[in-house]
Amino acid sequence: MADIAALAAALAGIELSTDRALLRQKSRDFYWYSPILKAQLDGKAAELYARPRDEAEVLRILAACRSAHVPVTVRGGGTGNYGQCVPMEGGVVLDMTAMAAPISLADGVVEVEAGAKMIDLDLWARERGWELKLWPSTKRTATIGGFVAGGGAGVGGISHGTLRERGNLLGARVATMQDPPVVLEVEGDAAAPVNRTYGTTGVLTRLRIPLTPAQAWRDVAIAFGDFVPAAQFALALAFADGIPKKMCGVFDSQLPPYFKGIADAVPEGHALALAMIAPGAMRALRDLAAEHGGRIVAEQDAVAAERDPEATPFYEYCWNHTTLQVLKKDRGVSYLQCRFPFEDTLKAVEAVRMRFREEVWMHTECVRFGGRITMSALPVIRWHGAERLAAIMAAFEAEGIGIANPHVLTIEEGSNYRRVPGDQLGFKRRVDPLGLLNPGKMRDFIPLETA
Amino acid sequence: MADIAALAAALAGIELSTDRALLRQKSRDFYWYSPILKAQLDGKAAELYARPRDEAEVLRILAACRSAHVPVTVRGGGTGNYGQCVPMEGGVVLDMTAMAAPISLADGVVEVEAGAKMIDLDLWARERGWELKLWPSTKRTATIGGFVAGGGAGVGGISHGTLRERGNLLGARVATMQDPPVVLEVEGDAAAPVNRTYGTTGVLTRLRIPLTPAQAWRDVAIAFGDFVPAAQFALALAFADGIPKKMCGVFDSQLPPYFKGIADAVPEGHALALAMIAPGAMRALRDLAAEHGGRIVAEQDAVAAERDPEATPFYEYCWNHTTLQVLKKDRGVSYLQCRFPFEDTLKAVEAVRMRFREEVWMHTECVRFGGRITMSALPVIRWHGAERLAAIMAAFEAEGIGIANPHVLTIEEGSNYRRVPGDQLGFKRRVDPLGLLNPGKMRDFIPLETA
Repeated sequence: MADIAALAAALAGIELSTDRALLRQKSRDFYWYSPILKAQLDGKAAELYARPRDEAEVLRILAACRSAHVPVTVRGGGTGNYGQCVPMEGGVVLDMTAMAAPISLADGVVEVEAGAKMIDLDLWARERGWELKLWPSTKRTATIGGFVAGGGAGVGGISHGTLRERGNLLGARVATMQDPPVVLEVEGDAAAPVNRTYGTTGVLTRLRIPLTPAQAWRDVAIAFGDFVPAAQFALALAFADGIPKKMCGVFDSQLPPYFKGIADAVPEGHALALAMIAPGAMRALRDLAAEHGGRIVAEQDAVAAERDPEATPFYEYCWNHTTLQVLKKDRGVSYLQCRFPFEDTLKAVEAVRMRFREEVWMHTECVRFGGRITMSALPVIRWHGAERLAAIMAAFEAEGIGIANPHVLTIEEGSNYRRVPGDQLGFKRRVDPLGLLNPGKMRDFIPLETA
Repeated sequence: MADIAALAAALAGIELSTDRALLRQKSRDFYWYSPILKAQLDGKAAELYARPRDEAEVLRILAACRSAHVPVTVRGGGTGNYGQCVPMEGGVVLDMTAMAAPISLADGVVEVEAGAKMIDLDLWARERGWELKLWPSTKRTATIGGFVAGGGAGVGGISHGTLRERGNLLGARVATMQDPPVVLEVEGDAAAPVNRTYGTTGVLTRLRIPLTPAQAWRDVAIAFGDFVPAAQFALALAFADGIPKKMCGVFDSQLPPYFKGIADAVPEGHALALAMIAPGAMRALRDLAAEHGGRIVAEQDAVAAERDPEATPFYEYCWNHTTLQVLKKDRGVSYLQCRFPFEDTLKAVEAVRMRFREEVWMHTECVRFGGRITMSALPVIRWHGAERLAAIMAAFEAEGIGIANPHVLTIEEGSNYRRVPGDQLGFKRRVDPLGLLNPGKMRDFIPLETA
């Protein structure tokens, strides 16, 4: 066991804490959506909390931890769902939220400290004529560093793909666990090794993120008599190049009653599509909705709603907020993450929706991967245990549906491909040879040295 | 023969002319790229030139022509390539360029008079934070009404599709040849009957066009050792959702020597890709180019180049300007218009490129149709007569490549599907029962009444 008191003494001048309640709070995220992760992670906690103000403090902390062989787990807003920022072996939890300043904006690219809250960053950008391309449904609490390190998909994906799409993460500064720790600057393709690695490949201190010109967005809720036309509408919207959009999710009829702000507007038994659309495209959207038998039942200014603490932007019913909205009223559910095939997308959706209708409440989101359109899904699942979950996942995969399992701890197990790319593993070996950065999260990594 | 003198007298107060040279000039477009159209259209001319200032004058002209049974052919900048604005049966040529005012801008949608030059409209929009989604390579001379009535594809198509994509034309005001002529307002899907009908379904007086938030663009020229990697690069760029772009054309090695401003920068025997890219995406573009063995050989600010009469924005080497650049030095060529399949796109390109390499100089443009990415092509063709052209077109079609024949006069013959949609034909019957609007251009229309 490391000498935490000695470590704290060595880090004098940096914001630190050993308060039990704080350590417990700062060692958690939203992993509890998964009963499996809950059983594995409840009670895990760091021994020392550190909140650096700048890169120099980050390097001091890393150097001290390397010397003392103490693990370091980095966290942003703590909005992840996979225990990304839960320290598996104690040590230091590194809270990045004090490093939150935008540094520069040029050519529509912002350089920003990793701990900036995404809503603040977007607001700052909007005042300068730009907006984020992508954000998670947790935008109002998540940090940009956390989104890069542990998220990367979400709102905007219907137009811009994911953060792993070339061009969506332009660069980073990353503090290493080398001897001595240094800050590396990685740019373009060379930034891939720090993209969605849960802080196992260095501590992101700054990010270079491309923005898109700011515009107003309308939140639109469209009700349909059945799930099928709702899904057909959503996919048609995703393919409609003439309609600028940021989001389109589809919800089977079991789900809208859990959406507090709009539940009353959706007729009982109706499926729902939620979209974010450029205001100028509303006429085209109405034509498209009418073609599929949909009716607009609610509408609001998305940006205004987001800034109003009393209001709910529609994206807070989408992505993994769907699951949260249900969990608020019913703790007996969990969820899955799926990606449907590019071809015959809706055939695959229907096959699993009809087969598991009682226990899997279908929720899909339109997305682009590599320039092609499909749907991902975060269906809400009535929890009947891990064995039943495995059977459902197997049935999905048998239909050609990719599963990104959200009930596992490691990057590899949670990936569609069950592995990390070689460049990430190689980079990890270089920057964290001792394996002190968020240990237990990159399964394939074996430390090359021991202290 | 109509009594043109009487007609002119009835239209006193409107800008008119019977000057032979002016009538000849205002009865032409760029149909002469096609030796076939040149033989058919040379010498065709209107008998009276009219340039209305407002809708009231348009209606006066249409009413007088209806009474006198005189055909009316509408024109904008006269930049078309299919003789769209060549009067086949004399009568009046209606020059819309005096009606060029922007009317309003709200929610990123501009309402504008049909005769506005696209470059002026784009400049006006840019001053207000918006820009056109789509424009032709003739942007510096074409009008928005002409683009809607006789064009509809071009720069921007790699991101926004064509003007026929739902949402890209939001509405129009159109003056009819009914008894009496009236101005109809058509919105959303209901505007389809006036979309690309050469002015046969009414005279467009105003258009409602969606804009996109303005941003800077870089013109980038990338040289490749061979056509194949250039085309692979271009298609990969089209699929790269993380790289905001407005254009990507590919040119086989015979073509760059004709591109005056950049010919010297392209090594002999090299293929070329020309792209318009958001400045912030240049790093990602360089990574993508390097991956395909391409080298950036020229670069400029696209918007600045467009505004400088001495400079050439790279889009003036693309789309049908490619053909024009060659025709400036060699009048022995013409061109074709093709659309490649969505699947195995480059296999189809290569099949025809290799087979006809000596006489068909391949030039492709990345485009989106219905949300899917492919390439269209406007290859330059060494002219060996109509029979040889037909053989080449047949060979292309045998490879599954769609041909939009630019060597024919009617909307139907020039379309991929060899027909006009039913709603256009029905609308034509309603608004121009006598068939006086640009006669000879909508093949399937048969006048229901005779005077």
